[in-house]
Amino acid sequence: MKQNNQKQYTIKEIMEKIDGVYEGKLSLDHQFNGVSSIENNTANKITFAENKKFIKKAAEHAEGLVLINNNFGETDIKNPLKVEDTRFSYVKVAKLFTPIPYYKPGIHDTAVIEKSASLGDNISIHSNTYIGENAEIDDNVIIAPGVKIAKNVKIGANSVLHPNVVIERDSKLGNNVIIEAGSVIGSEGYGYITREGKHYHIPQLGNVIIEDDVEIGASVTIDRGTQSSTIIGKGTKIDNQVQVGHNVKIGKYCLLIGQVGIGGSAILGDNVIVAGQAGITDHVKLGNNVKVGAGSIVTSDITADSFYLGNPAQDRMKELKIRVIRKKLPEYWKEIKNLKKS
Amino acid sequence: MKQNNQKQYTIKEIMEKIDGVYEGKLSLDHQFNGVSSIENNTANKITFAENKKFIKKAAEHAEGLVLINNNFGETDIKNPLKVEDTRFSYVKVAKLFTPIPYYKPGIHDTAVIEKSASLGDNISIHSNTYIGENAEIDDNVIIAPGVKIAKNVKIGANSVLHPNVVIERDSKLGNNVIIEAGSVIGSEGYGYITREGKHYHIPQLGNVIIEDDVEIGASVTIDRGTQSSTIIGKGTKIDNQVQVGHNVKIGKYCLLIGQVGIGGSAILGDNVIVAGQAGITDHVKLGNNVKVGAGSIVTSDITADSFYLGNPAQDRMKELKIRVIRKKLPEYWKEIKNLKKS
Amino acid sequence: MKQNNQKQYTIKEIMEKIDGVYEGKLSLDHQFNGVSSIENNTANKITFAENKKFIKKAAEHAEGLVLINNNFGETDIKNPLKVEDTRFSYVKVAKLFTPIPYYKPGIHDTAVIEKSASLGDNISIHSNTYIGENAEIDDNVIIAPGVKIAKNVKIGANSVLHPNVVIERDSKLGNNVIIEAGSVIGSEGYGYITREGKHYHIPQLGNVIIEDDVEIGASVTIDRGTQSSTIIGKGTKIDNQVQVGHNVKIGKYCLLIGQVGIGGSAILGDNVIVAGQAGITDHVKLGNNVKVGAGSIVTSDITADSFYLGNPAQDRMKELKIRVIRKKLPEYWKEIKNLKKS
Repeated sequence: MKQNNQKQYTIKEIMEKIDGVYEGKLSLDHQFNGVSSIENNTANKITFAENKKFIKKAAEHAEGLVLINNNFGETDIKNPLKVEDTRFSYVKVAKLFTPIPYYKPGIHDTAVIEKSASLGDNISIHSNTYIGENAEIDDNVIIAPGVKIAKNVKIGANSVLHPNVVIERDSKLGNNVIIEAGSVIGSEGYGYITREGKHYHIPQLGNVIIEDDVEIGASVTIDRGTQSSTIIGKGTKIDNQVQVGHNVKIGKYCLLIGQVGIGGSAILGDNVIVAGQAGITDHVKLGNNVKVGAGSIVTSDITADSFYLGNPAQDRMKELKIRVIRKKLPEYWKEIKNLKKS
Repeated sequence: MKQNNQKQYTIKEIMEKIDGVYEGKLSLDHQFNGVSSIENNTANKITFAENKKFIKKAAEHAEGLVLINNNFGETDIKNPLKVEDTRFSYVKVAKLFTPIPYYKPGIHDTAVIEKSASLGDNISIHSNTYIGENAEIDDNVIIAPGVKIAKNVKIGANSVLHPNVVIERDSKLGNNVIIEAGSVIGSEGYGYITREGKHYHIPQLGNVIIEDDVEIGASVTIDRGTQSSTIIGKGTKIDNQVQVGHNVKIGKYCLLIGQVGIGGSAILGDNVIVAGQAGITDHVKLGNNVKVGAGSIVTSDITADSFYLGNPAQDRMKELKIRVIRKKLPEYWKEIKNLKKS
Repeated sequence: MKQNNQKQYTIKEIMEKIDGVYEGKLSLDHQFNGVSSIENNTANKITFAENKKFIKKAAEHAEGLVLINNNFGETDIKNPLKVEDTRFSYVKVAKLFTPIPYYKPGIHDTAVIEKSASLGDNISIHSNTYIGENAEIDDNVIIAPGVKIAKNVKIGANSVLHPNVVIERDSKLGNNVIIEAGSVIGSEGYGYITREGKHYHIPQLGNVIIEDDVEIGASVTIDRGTQSSTIIGKGTKIDNQVQVGHNVKIGKYCLLIGQVGIGGSAILGDNVIVAGQAGITDHVKLGNNVKVGAGSIVTSDITADSFYLGNPAQDRMKELKIRVIRKKLPEYWKEIKNLKKS
């Protein structure tokens, strides 16, 4: 892992990262130091144009490299690089220039690390951090200022924890996990037993397992399991302020958008998408490829490949049909009254 | 308070904590070091079986102690301990083995404590914490890494504040209060007066009072009162990401589930349960024993012992009846059209 | 900026801050040290009475200064100060006595400040804080314990950051900005491109701009823009646990109440009010002076001066009419059945 903060790449080097055919005027050794919008494109920046409108714009404004689809024939763009998947190629190129946040190998004087913790190579441990007993931090991990890691936690290689993240005891994070600031992983699950009107906490003895390539937003909370593990599957991406209850199992490559809530012991398959502010109630199961619309409340199981919407959520097409009728209820009520008269 | 991290208990000692009749083969001096699921039960672990299915399973798998209800007669379980309330007994036993998080009496070198703060006995104050002027921290309190306590705050005995919790000025916490990571108690209430299109903040001069035995999840926010106190009643349990506005009074033994929002000056009686993502609007009053369903929006007062649901929330049975009809609206609309024709 | 913690003001001094006519018995040099409710008013405290009921109460209880509207004639209040706008005058007076939180000019020993950061005059930098490379902190800024400020951040004069706030790289905050504890500004936006079932993060190269006089609650998250800026307009006030997606533009003097979610690239005009738990979906535009009711989901653009409600949100009067009918659906269904019979 190298610091790519002010990295420069030549056209030749970029063509090694993404397949493409270069048809421009600048030499293959011309260097670029970043990406830009079309409007702000200069000779040292790379941009992309996805359709005719943007290609026209790029022909007028872009002095640097412009990624375009190889379906386009001749254009007036000065330095086009023709690729199969414009947007994906752009994302790969933009990544090359993106600074790794808080990359600064070494251990800051003010970090507090218990002796039994083990640290890999090339780790950046910033100020005012805490690493608990028997924690294992793998190679190239970045621990930003104020992060607190409790005992028996494992953080996989190349992971990045932003400022003030808290990882509670026994949590296991895979490789390439990114967690934005202020999130809490492994908090005590909300499990109570009520006797004579008083609530007694059920000790939560499980943990949280976060698989490889998971990315988690800011102020997210994920509770640890009661006896087993709360699991976030490989490649799942979680937006800000999402809450995941204890014992939840989330599959691979899911998307949970901002402020979603997943009730305890719910199970989500792979490739599930839950839109903003939707809630999944306790113990509910969602099959693979399920989609849930924004602000929905899911109260019963959903079979694979379904798209659900509403409160309570139901098949989206049914819900949309009902919404159309609901809007016309005042008219319908008039019809009923008219019928009654006649 | 003793560190019970790798504590061992004999059957005899366990029977002193929970009433029960032991009918097993292991001697009364046999030692246990933890609890387990039935599947993973070994000779040193304790588990429980609540019904015939689990009793059969326990007879096959469990080598250690199994809590079962004293209604059950003969079973094939090797080491049964018969109790009146299986689950409650299990919770008590599990508690015995649960480590107290961040228990480590003493004050870390990097803790910053103002001189006028007063500290009780046997306190664990971890790294990078702050304790403000005139704060009073009672006996056995645990202050995890990164906790910030502002001035004039009082924390009652045996309370546990997880990493990066913030307690703002003048907040008063009772005994046995547990707050999970990243929560904020006593933030400035959201009170504004608008003049000529501009909003002026109304100084919030009150505080937050949290009574004994309250447990609060991760990333919860509780605002302080405008002139008086925002109050969380004894034994109330609050899940992750709940927001409590200024001047709110919450009764005793309430349950507020994940992502619930309580608007300013709302009043909740005792034993109120508000399910996930529900919202209570400003100034609304809920009587004792009120229940509110998930995702509901409560816009008017609710009398004691009611169960409300929907947006806007109404009596649950009425709401459920309407939901059934709502789902059939397309059919009904056809009926109306048919009637019109004929 | 002076510490006004235990500040005293005479009646004369107060009359210099707010226009008013004093008709009381206490001398103009009598000193006050705070505000109070009417019930708790003593000779050294100031309170206010807005209507006849409160004026009667103030006549009975208040020994100190009482702000009343200059429309009221003779009253039995001992020390009335007649003003044009009672509540606004009270807010101004209360502000005089409100302590500035964490005011303590100087830099704490445990603060970690990169050499390239620049600091203005009279700054309070507390313990366990971090200020990154090239950060610019203007005069009179207060940085409470545990705040983390990444590189290239700018904080305008007189701003206050409460404990454990995180400001991510390149964020620009104006003057007089207040951010409550635990909030995160400038987190990575939630932008992904999906190829063959896997999600690839789109680098978020923009930033967050927060204009003057913005106040932000606790545990708020605001993502930085993809290429451009996420903008919070001047004088806007944001309540706790609000989530603002990348590329969002929020106008001036808006109010976003607790747990509101604003989807990516949404645009809000000036003076927009979004009530608690409401959600605005991606790319939606709200005109000036738009109001959105609590718990609504806005899925399409709203023209200026509208009041929207519901899920999906529509004109509030229409929605209320439909809600009335919805509640009566069981009766209507009976009507239809009766009609069918006859």
